[in-house]
Amino acid sequence: MIPLVLHEDRYFDPDPTRRRIARELYAEVKELPIVGPHGHVDPAILADNSAFPEPATLIVVPDHYIFRMLYSQGIRLEELGVPPIDGSPVETDARKIWQRFADHYYLFAGTPTGAWLTHEFYEVFGIREKLTSESAMRVYDHIAQLLEQPEYLPRALFDRFNIEVLTTTDAAGDTLVHHKAIQESDWGGRVIPCFRPDAVFRINRPNWKQQMQALERVCGYEIPTYATFIQALEERRAFFKEMGAVSTDHAVLIPYTERLSEHSVTSIFESALKGTSSKEEEHLFEAHMLMEMARMSIEDGMVMQIHPGSFRDHNAELANRFGPDKGADIPVHTEFTHNLHALLNTYGHDPRLSLVLFTLDETTYSRELAPLAGHYPALKLGPAWWFFDSIEGMTRYRQLVTETAGIYNTAGFNDDTRAFPSIPARHDLSRRVDANFLADQVARHIIDLADARIMIHELAYGLVKKTYKLE
Amino acid sequence: MIPLVLHEDRYFDPDPTRRRIARELYAEVKELPIVGPHGHVDPAILADNSAFPEPATLIVVPDHYIFRMLYSQGIRLEELGVPPIDGSPVETDARKIWQRFADHYYLFAGTPTGAWLTHEFYEVFGIREKLTSESAMRVYDHIAQLLEQPEYLPRALFDRFNIEVLTTTDAAGDTLVHHKAIQESDWGGRVIPCFRPDAVFRINRPNWKQQMQALERVCGYEIPTYATFIQALEERRAFFKEMGAVSTDHAVLIPYTERLSEHSVTSIFESALKGTSSKEEEHLFEAHMLMEMARMSIEDGMVMQIHPGSFRDHNAELANRFGPDKGADIPVHTEFTHNLHALLNTYGHDPRLSLVLFTLDETTYSRELAPLAGHYPALKLGPAWWFFDSIEGMTRYRQLVTETAGIYNTAGFNDDTRAFPSIPARHDLSRRVDANFLADQVARHIIDLADARIMIHELAYGLVKKTYKLE
Amino acid sequence: MIPLVLHEDRYFDPDPTRRRIARELYAEVKELPIVGPHGHVDPAILADNSAFPEPATLIVVPDHYIFRMLYSQGIRLEELGVPPIDGSPVETDARKIWQRFADHYYLFAGTPTGAWLTHEFYEVFGIREKLTSESAMRVYDHIAQLLEQPEYLPRALFDRFNIEVLTTTDAAGDTLVHHKAIQESDWGGRVIPCFRPDAVFRINRPNWKQQMQALERVCGYEIPTYATFIQALEERRAFFKEMGAVSTDHAVLIPYTERLSEHSVTSIFESALKGTSSKEEEHLFEAHMLMEMARMSIEDGMVMQIHPGSFRDHNAELANRFGPDKGADIPVHTEFTHNLHALLNTYGHDPRLSLVLFTLDETTYSRELAPLAGHYPALKLGPAWWFFDSIEGMTRYRQLVTETAGIYNTAGFNDDTRAFPSIPARHDLSRRVDANFLADQVARHIIDLADARIMIHELAYGLVKKTYKLE
Repeated sequence: MIPLVLHEDRYFDPDPTRRRIARELYAEVKELPIVGPHGHVDPAILADNSAFPEPATLIVVPDHYIFRMLYSQGIRLEELGVPPIDGSPVETDARKIWQRFADHYYLFAGTPTGAWLTHEFYEVFGIREKLTSESAMRVYDHIAQLLEQPEYLPRALFDRFNIEVLTTTDAAGDTLVHHKAIQESDWGGRVIPCFRPDAVFRINRPNWKQQMQALERVCGYEIPTYATFIQALEERRAFFKEMGAVSTDHAVLIPYTERLSEHSVTSIFESALKGTSSKEEEHLFEAHMLMEMARMSIEDGMVMQIHPGSFRDHNAELANRFGPDKGADIPVHTEFTHNLHALLNTYGHDPRLSLVLFTLDETTYSRELAPLAGHYPALKLGPAWWFFDSIEGMTRYRQLVTETAGIYNTAGFNDDTRAFPSIPARHDLSRRVDANFLADQVARHIIDLADARIMIHELAYGLVKKTYKLE
Repeated sequence: MIPLVLHEDRYFDPDPTRRRIARELYAEVKELPIVGPHGHVDPAILADNSAFPEPATLIVVPDHYIFRMLYSQGIRLEELGVPPIDGSPVETDARKIWQRFADHYYLFAGTPTGAWLTHEFYEVFGIREKLTSESAMRVYDHIAQLLEQPEYLPRALFDRFNIEVLTTTDAAGDTLVHHKAIQESDWGGRVIPCFRPDAVFRINRPNWKQQMQALERVCGYEIPTYATFIQALEERRAFFKEMGAVSTDHAVLIPYTERLSEHSVTSIFESALKGTSSKEEEHLFEAHMLMEMARMSIEDGMVMQIHPGSFRDHNAELANRFGPDKGADIPVHTEFTHNLHALLNTYGHDPRLSLVLFTLDETTYSRELAPLAGHYPALKLGPAWWFFDSIEGMTRYRQLVTETAGIYNTAGFNDDTRAFPSIPARHDLSRRVDANFLADQVARHIIDLADARIMIHELAYGLVKKTYKLE
Repeated sequence: MIPLVLHEDRYFDPDPTRRRIARELYAEVKELPIVGPHGHVDPAILADNSAFPEPATLIVVPDHYIFRMLYSQGIRLEELGVPPIDGSPVETDARKIWQRFADHYYLFAGTPTGAWLTHEFYEVFGIREKLTSESAMRVYDHIAQLLEQPEYLPRALFDRFNIEVLTTTDAAGDTLVHHKAIQESDWGGRVIPCFRPDAVFRINRPNWKQQMQALERVCGYEIPTYATFIQALEERRAFFKEMGAVSTDHAVLIPYTERLSEHSVTSIFESALKGTSSKEEEHLFEAHMLMEMARMSIEDGMVMQIHPGSFRDHNAELANRFGPDKGADIPVHTEFTHNLHALLNTYGHDPRLSLVLFTLDETTYSRELAPLAGHYPALKLGPAWWFFDSIEGMTRYRQLVTETAGIYNTAGFNDDTRAFPSIPARHDLSRRVDANFLADQVARHIIDLADARIMIHELAYGLVKKTYKLE
């Protein structure tokens, strides 16, 4: 048995001066509640509050961070129980899936997934031995047995994790039935939706019609014109807000913004309805809808988030067999200065707008995003996203952003996860990295300890509440 | 009262080995004279040698580094006394402006502006308490009272700062009347102009005609043809050189270079005079004029500087109300390898040319600029510019450039500032960062201490004098 | 005399915790054999096994890393004995060339060339004084005298360097006569070719016909059609494989991939034969040939390497006078996500393909390459290339790649050198940098020492053998 260690000084610089200060700063925020303004946990989990499934189905099968790494080393998704669209057979023996995962667990050394899993195993499940080929079944049994206990039901974990608010991500046509169920239950957990209407903006995709039908269904009327489309969106936003939402989210490949003339946008929408819209028209329509979303945010006060730069489902064969989100979303070079010019010129100086930008292109941190956020009142920088939501990634984010934008133009942390049991691991890692970053600044006499104490509190808790108007 | 501390080891790595060496290297250059080959101090200040205005007008109102940060957090420029073009009323109570600045001074924690101000307050003005809401008026009074003393007149500070040479930036049509006044005075300070003809190259801008008229005025003749334009530029360069100038400076969005045919450039210039030139013609004209500037530099020996990649006045509304340079210049992705091909192929191997390149796109340091500077004899890399003129920014510059280009293909430091009292702070910070960079190299046995001693002297003093031919 | 020091802790972080661990990890791999899967040593050197020429001709004249730096500081290539194409006279006094090199040796402080030369001087040639203007002739004599000894013959050094396998780079039309000579000799050194057919893919270059004639010569038949061209390539690959090759290599400016229709590619090849092909047709032909190379790799098992993003011979005047590879290859911004989409979608999931990608654009490490390599089974990331084959460059590579792709999707080290005596220096530096990287991870409790021990072995030896199927 190889012991599993979760070192109390993990992620801190070994230099004694830095480490001492990092410990002190981390201690200030270690126990603060978790505020989750952006994530992908399925609200049904907390609405139903049923026991989680066994370990492989809970931890391996749905996590594209995990199976992408195994896939990259030649393990087929079928061997990991990932279900193909056509229902063709896959591995169904959960223990075999877990064993394969354990056999390849060494691949995660030095990755954030490795760090999160170590924390989750140790803190959430009380595992005290390293996951290896040899220990696989013991670890499996240990977790499986716990998952049957009432203390491991979703709401119990939510409370134990000290989550103050958890945000989900929901389509424009979503009924929010699970959020309603949670609100009407006797449980006090705050689980709020986020309005993400991407699918109804992508007028050139095969499933646009289907998405529009879902929107029509929840609205209770047909959407035959662009004007009605706008009305529908405004109504849905109002409904989401009623249901507790404080934010919207928008994923685009290129964050281009442009206000089209009434004539142009109407005509594009008509061609979309006829099924004759082009890729280029979709691009313009998305650019226009970002402008509209900013306008509506100013009116209804919802925080607007943009997540650009991901080439979704790069591996077409895999997407065709298994559906989207199978670990093949690959970043592309992203441009903000020109692309956001229209939006920022129109709305960027309006104090009623809170626009949070994310990026998968780290080169834009210091070149474009920090200068923009260090100028426009409406703009805040979201935390390091996705591949950069990691020890080195977050450190680079702070180093590249802080000198130009300070910390007060950043939006605090979000975990962005669909893996519910990994939430504390991610927030803990973030707090440690920020404590270490500030400790370095104190050790080099760039800031003093009194400032750092205030700043670590802002980074771990204050900024996210302020940015997302959760106060 | 919270004491203001200017730690003697600031910006040095806390590791004892590195810190010991950094101290030793910094001590070698700490007292060297300041050489300023590029900056934006108004020469009238030193020509008139009048007392500086009170603290808010001296420090807050003209500094876009300061008011951009406050603006980003919702403070309107009017509240900071920044004058609108149309003369509409703004805050005129200097104490109220200073108080607002002090109330938000915490925003600068971890930024170079914060570091510079700490140094300026402590060293130049002898402040010994931190600027806070509470201390604001005491700090104000302390500085205000000093500014009335003869020791705080511009020339006295220039001498006390130990400035060996200070370079200003001047338009092609500038009369250099202030430089003349300084030269004819009994004061020995060396204040030299730099020839920056951007405005007469931008043939598609609304104010081009106006700029051309200024050029015609100082030349004493009309400029009806491209040939006369070239003659005028050559004459102005000769005049600037006579007035002590050693360099020219050129800001472009894209550093594209191309020699146009005589026919093409003549025809573009004609359409400019007629007011019918296009954006694309302006782009080509600028590309051609960079070639011409290189040619003239080879002939008259003036050092040529290129500052590309800044999208000027991104916030159009602000520019319309307050004019240019209001903290909304945002970098864009920049390309050098293809764009400079024509210029470097024609002139890059000529030892008579000294071409200094700057960038706002850090990705070009290691990918394009260091390889180019590590090859072409004419090329030197300018220091980290603007948003990167900072502790982390300068450190990245050295780490990304030195391995490919060495230090001898870099141009030393310049402060690039219009904030006269901040000059010593900026040079001190630069010397500390370079000392720390070299200390790290010594501590890792990449270079030895004897080499580092020579190198720190070059970085702080030798290279800038050699590059700008100030020896 | 200034002593030359090769510190036993060189390149390790001075922090005592990190340094202790780095030493321990380095000790594990210090003595492992050198595996060279990619490089440019002339196989004739090892086929002939003649004594190396005197020091200037061995070390200075052929090394563009060295003479590019001297050229950048105004030394003409003629002064360094680099031979012009037209045979016009250059410096022929080897001692004068060596003296010039020594006079400017300080330029290499902080560069990888400096680090490699220090190691080579100290370890290979037993020099114990620093190279300076004053010591130049003593160092020269010392090396010159050793080079006459049998212990310094190429094969003796190969054996002393503990090289397990050395790969050369060879054109499609190469006869591999030197590889044959080595194989038929009684010496057991493993020197294998690598198939690099770039020249016959560049249908728009002046020397394409000449390259095609060389290919026809070694094939023994004419190549009048595209079908015959493919046949010829397949035959040559089979021959290279017979001669021990395990890999192919492909240099392109832009790594665009696209499978053309049979009709299109046939017609492009015909226009190439007629000499009427365009630049754009060359671009498409290269894109298509990358697809074909991947297809053939799947069939014959040879590892495919792509080296994109270098603007070759940027200094046209120098290339015209001295030929290619004179230190003026400058990187350009590179894009992988879109460009490789066709190739990866077609072949990226095939476990029979091993595709190694290199880059000169560091921004692609974390944005595109690590995400791609962390997904596609066929893909591995090559080590930091060229300007980044350095202490800081390799460190950034690990920091930017490991969190997303882990270490097991990377390809181990290669020295990429034509400077045979520098081979041990380069591998030693790489092992030290990797040991230091892992030591930092252990010191921060991201990985544990047991993991790090396995990982350092993989990085120094295991991964390269697995990736290149050298086991």
